[in-house]
Amino acid sequence: MDSRRVEKKGRESDPCWLRYERIEDEALADQYRQWCKKLVVCGSSPILDSAREELVAGISSMLGISPTLSRDPQVSPSLVMAAPSEGRNWVDRRSWEEMGEEGYLLKTAHREGGASLLLLGKSDRGVLYGVFHLLRLMQIGRPLHSLEIVENPGNRLRMINHWDNLDGSVERGYAGKSIFYHGGRIARRLDRVRDYARLLASTGINAISINNVNVGREECRLITGSLLPDVARLADVFRAYGIRMFLSVNFASPMWIGGLPTADPLDPEVRRWWRERTEEIYRHIPDFGGFVVKADSEHQPGPLTYGRDHAEGANMLAEALRPHGGLVVWRCFVYNFQDWRDRSTDRARAAYDHFKPLDGRFADNVVLQIKNGPMDFQVREPVSPLFGAMERTNQMLELQITQEYTGQQKDLCFLVPQWKEVLDFDTHAEGKGSTVKAVVGGQVFPFRYSGIAGVSNVGDDRNWTGHTLAQANLYGFGRLAWNPDLSAEEIAEEWVRLSFGHDPRVVQTIRDMLLESWRVYESYTAPLGIGWMVKPGHHYGPDVDGYEYSYWGTYHYADHRGIGVDRTVKTGTGFTGQYFSPNRERYESLETCPDELLLFFHHVPYTHRLKSGETVIQHIYNTHFEGVERVEDFIRRWTRLKGKIDEERYEHVLSKLQEQLANAREWRDVINAYFFRKSGIPDEKGRKIY
Amino acid sequence: MDSRRVEKKGRESDPCWLRYERIEDEALADQYRQWCKKLVVCGSSPILDSAREELVAGISSMLGISPTLSRDPQVSPSLVMAAPSEGRNWVDRRSWEEMGEEGYLLKTAHREGGASLLLLGKSDRGVLYGVFHLLRLMQIGRPLHSLEIVENPGNRLRMINHWDNLDGSVERGYAGKSIFYHGGRIARRLDRVRDYARLLASTGINAISINNVNVGREECRLITGSLLPDVARLADVFRAYGIRMFLSVNFASPMWIGGLPTADPLDPEVRRWWRERTEEIYRHIPDFGGFVVKADSEHQPGPLTYGRDHAEGANMLAEALRPHGGLVVWRCFVYNFQDWRDRSTDRARAAYDHFKPLDGRFADNVVLQIKNGPMDFQVREPVSPLFGAMERTNQMLELQITQEYTGQQKDLCFLVPQWKEVLDFDTHAEGKGSTVKAVVGGQVFPFRYSGIAGVSNVGDDRNWTGHTLAQANLYGFGRLAWNPDLSAEEIAEEWVRLSFGHDPRVVQTIRDMLLESWRVYESYTAPLGIGWMVKPGHHYGPDVDGYEYSYWGTYHYADHRGIGVDRTVKTGTGFTGQYFSPNRERYESLETCPDELLLFFHHVPYTHRLKSGETVIQHIYNTHFEGVERVEDFIRRWTRLKGKIDEERYEHVLSKLQEQLANAREWRDVINAYFFRKSGIPDEKGRKIY
Repeated sequence: MDSRRVEKKGRESDPCWLRYERIEDEALADQYRQWCKKLVVCGSSPILDSAREELVAGISSMLGISPTLSRDPQVSPSLVMAAPSEGRNWVDRRSWEEMGEEGYLLKTAHREGGASLLLLGKSDRGVLYGVFHLLRLMQIGRPLHSLEIVENPGNRLRMINHWDNLDGSVERGYAGKSIFYHGGRIARRLDRVRDYARLLASTGINAISINNVNVGREECRLITGSLLPDVARLADVFRAYGIRMFLSVNFASPMWIGGLPTADPLDPEVRRWWRERTEEIYRHIPDFGGFVVKADSEHQPGPLTYGRDHAEGANMLAEALRPHGGLVVWRCFVYNFQDWRDRSTDRARAAYDHFKPLDGRFADNVVLQIKNGPMDFQVREPVSPLFGAMERTNQMLELQITQEYTGQQKDLCFLVPQWKEVLDFDTHAEGKGSTVKAVVGGQVFPFRYSGIAGVSNVGDDRNWTGHTLAQANLYGFGRLAWNPDLSAEEIAEEWVRLSFGHDPRVVQTIRDMLLESWRVYESYTAPLGIGWMVKPGHHYGPDVDGYEYSYWGTYHYADHRGIGVDRTVKTGTGFTGQYFSPNRERYESLETCPDELLLFFHHVPYTHRLKSGETVIQHIYNTHFEGVERVEDFIRRWTRLKGKIDEERYEHVLSKLQEQLANAREWRDVINAYFFRKSGIPDEKGRKIY
Repeated sequence: MDSRRVEKKGRESDPCWLRYERIEDEALADQYRQWCKKLVVCGSSPILDSAREELVAGISSMLGISPTLSRDPQVSPSLVMAAPSEGRNWVDRRSWEEMGEEGYLLKTAHREGGASLLLLGKSDRGVLYGVFHLLRLMQIGRPLHSLEIVENPGNRLRMINHWDNLDGSVERGYAGKSIFYHGGRIARRLDRVRDYARLLASTGINAISINNVNVGREECRLITGSLLPDVARLADVFRAYGIRMFLSVNFASPMWIGGLPTADPLDPEVRRWWRERTEEIYRHIPDFGGFVVKADSEHQPGPLTYGRDHAEGANMLAEALRPHGGLVVWRCFVYNFQDWRDRSTDRARAAYDHFKPLDGRFADNVVLQIKNGPMDFQVREPVSPLFGAMERTNQMLELQITQEYTGQQKDLCFLVPQWKEVLDFDTHAEGKGSTVKAVVGGQVFPFRYSGIAGVSNVGDDRNWTGHTLAQANLYGFGRLAWNPDLSAEEIAEEWVRLSFGHDPRVVQTIRDMLLESWRVYESYTAPLGIGWMVKPGHHYGPDVDGYEYSYWGTYHYADHRGIGVDRTVKTGTGFTGQYFSPNRERYESLETCPDELLLFFHHVPYTHRLKSGETVIQHIYNTHFEGVERVEDFIRRWTRLKGKIDEERYEHVLSKLQEQLANAREWRDVINAYFFRKSGIPDEKGRKIY
């Protein structure tokens, strides 16, 4: 055997959910072959070419046939993939108008003389999404003879944010190095990027920012002539999959790379500098998406330095982008460092306090990007009260796919259930039904731009995501961004079938493990919504006081009697008052505040009884003992899959689960020891606490 | 003014205590000029040349005259500096024999026809030390007309250890980069090193190891042909000041740079490799001192990997060095990582447990280097029970001049009072009077080699030590290594006069601040000998639980009732049993254990009453409030020196004190908050606790 071939094979990246395994059920495969042996393609463009290539490759791989390509729509039976300009002829007006700009239609059309499977889009992108949908149906084994599907995305912006740096490092990356950068340059070979674009497009992602929101001096060069030609190469790859490229920019760029004495957004020279920079970008990337900005946050520069506010800062960039159709994605992750002694300041209030007063002052090509919670991607926190609170300002939701505080792709933590809770949360901004998904979907207020962004969990590891099962988070993010009404269960099962096939025990085991995993992770880490009890800096593993006496604004205030942050209006920081009724009252009251967020909103004695009937301290002990037991159970269930999935992924996941067990035990023992030592209250069940 | 000259001047390093300021008292200067205008120098060698140069430079600078050099001993009055071979003729036999190998004599000899000030040494080194002594007397303003001084060092080895790395970084360095290395090479210009050698020689240092005991792969090259010529250049500089050079070596070097498959100390090939390496070193550095070794400690390799013990490891190196007169300095800082859940293991026991059983098995050119305490250079810990416990094994004491756990040269912490307590500690190894200084001075057991080593606090900062007042620690270390009977008060006053002159308020203020500073630092940091409550990794600032749930073996076991580590024989780890009586009983008993070490040896309730009458918790509150007040007082006292010392040093120290105040406040508030929250016991005086 050729050893070079082995080596190359060894380095090939995992196909994730685009495996297109040969369909074993011959009857089913035969049905599919009927539809797929003749492929009628109408139209051509980079995106349509990608769509056709994907379709042909998928069909070949799953069915073992090479479809005959034709431009003759009368061939029957056939699969007709038609561009928007031609697709209109194939369906009635109602069906056509059901489709939005990025929508598609999959329909089995039985006509005189035969039948066609129609795959039509309102845009090239729509066709591409239709292709991936069709291939997914086939991978999952669905019949095709009576399809009647029209799909439109639930969000206009479906975006991935990368926190990659030019030196190849990835901030909060747990899957190797950047796939974009290597040693201060953009990678020469972009095969991996192309595969990534396919993966993203298959879930409906249509935008990507390719560099860290903490923009260093080196990364400032991404918007200069020295690197733009290379950036454009990346944009070309993504464009062919319907994904517009964005860049994160540093607000101080006019000084850092422009040689100007100021970055004041009202300074005419600064405005001119940004205009000229933007023009140059568009010369290289005509469909450039725009800028992502982290300003005046965690040492990043911003307009406040110059006595300007966030609206003035964002609008200045918006003005430069407007002529080209570009957007400013302005992050709301803004807070001040604080003195831990000061209990009146509350970081949770910061985003709302900073931005709410600016409602209506942002240009209409600015979108505020708001993290799901008011703190920072904790395992559990309430939904940010800023959603729905700015009716005249475009908003989008920011989720973290990369597992910074949720196990770092060592511990299993499928985040879709968490995201579902966020999306389904009713803000009551415009009365009942003003869910977060409706707000960022643009249904509550008529936002010009809105949607969902997620921080990527991808690196150059062969399996993309460190933990193979963490691929499900990337998949789930894209699926939810497309359709926030999907359930976690649907997404999990879909992903397992695409990734591991259809053995019932495999499907059930992995699906259930995924669906349980977030609550398992929660159970052995910080209790009852308090968050943060992690080792400072890297954020993996327990350190109860790690952030307690710091300037980060992240405290638990545990003493010998009790624990929690009083964020009520009546006696605390007043944070609950940022919510619309009835959420405001629900969180304000100890009686109605949900258990899982109790310590986020209230300081209570350890002997306080939860709705479950347990005391707080006993809940801490119980969940931490149970968390470890549940990881042990994961391992038991996983080992029953031996032989039912490929050895490589079996062993990989097993070793990750074992690593997770060690972590869970450390968490259990540290948390229990900390609270036992502090409260002096023994475990009712007499279990070992150190 | 020539700007280049300004720049150079700006980069000139601080002369520290070798300022040789012009003597303002003209009557005194005239007296000195009588003795110094004619200088008779008998003999020549690199060291004698250094001595003569120093003497001439000092005289010129202080007295404004250039002494006439002569070889005619009959000139009178004159200052006669004589090499050993000629010095013998100048004094009677008794005086001559009072001097040891490195001793010297300073004597005013009134003869017929005139008088001479004799400066004689038993060796070139002795003459050099005599020169520095004489210059010190003149700087301090002592009369010279009736001198009769014979001095011999109290320790044979008076050594500085550097933790410098080839890349220029300094482990636990707080004064800039290495003065030896720059970018992977040995510095080209060695002016700074020469000044350093002068500073060290002026206090009597006679040995130096120039690289970190954590020896990386790069640093292994120091003992190879690629770097030895450069290492020899460094050795040349030090040799001229009587200082022998040592190198830290990595036990795995035969594998790392020798290409051998093992580093087993009993393997003949390994032994041969070390022998050949050593021979090559001596070809470059004929008076090479030997190797410093950190083995089987904190991830460093060692003999235990091969089933050999420390004696077998050390003796293998000793065998290679013996033909050349070299030594092995083998560090006893050896302990195992442990599980924080396991309260039976005790890191404090480790050095004794590892080494005591090996007594008598080490070659006589091996010296065990033992840290002052059983843990690791904490602000307060008991003396290591290993001192005096190995009567047939050479021992030396290791102190840390660099302020790792003692304020990192931001906070003022004059360590001589701490070191004095260590040196004066009576081990009772051979009954009363077996002090540590007597043990390492070789007076209790007839060690062939023994002495004191200190980890350098020096870097390439202009003032050498970050905090200018930290120069006093380097000075004090050298002075104590020479004469451990000096008092902290004597050393402090001497250093202040040499460094800041003789204004009574200046002398009193700085001397008192120095002498108080260690206890002040102790008062606002970890209480009652418990240690460790520092931020992990860098070790500056408070983090009470920072090491509590770690594998470092450094715990306080604080719970809501009490705190401390039970190290008694009766109910604890048995560590107290490693001491000789009556120390053993003294530490074992709660009644006799000194307050300042209470929590090191005992776990007690917060309500336990100290000998002072305070409870433990009230002691914690009191000392932490007082600590901050005392730093405020330092600042008040320092500001009264404005105009009495140069502006540069005045402002520098003031800014350091302000930085210290911020640190002290943080410590106060975190420690008090931690223990108040944990114990629930309020401060009797009702002061603010957060």
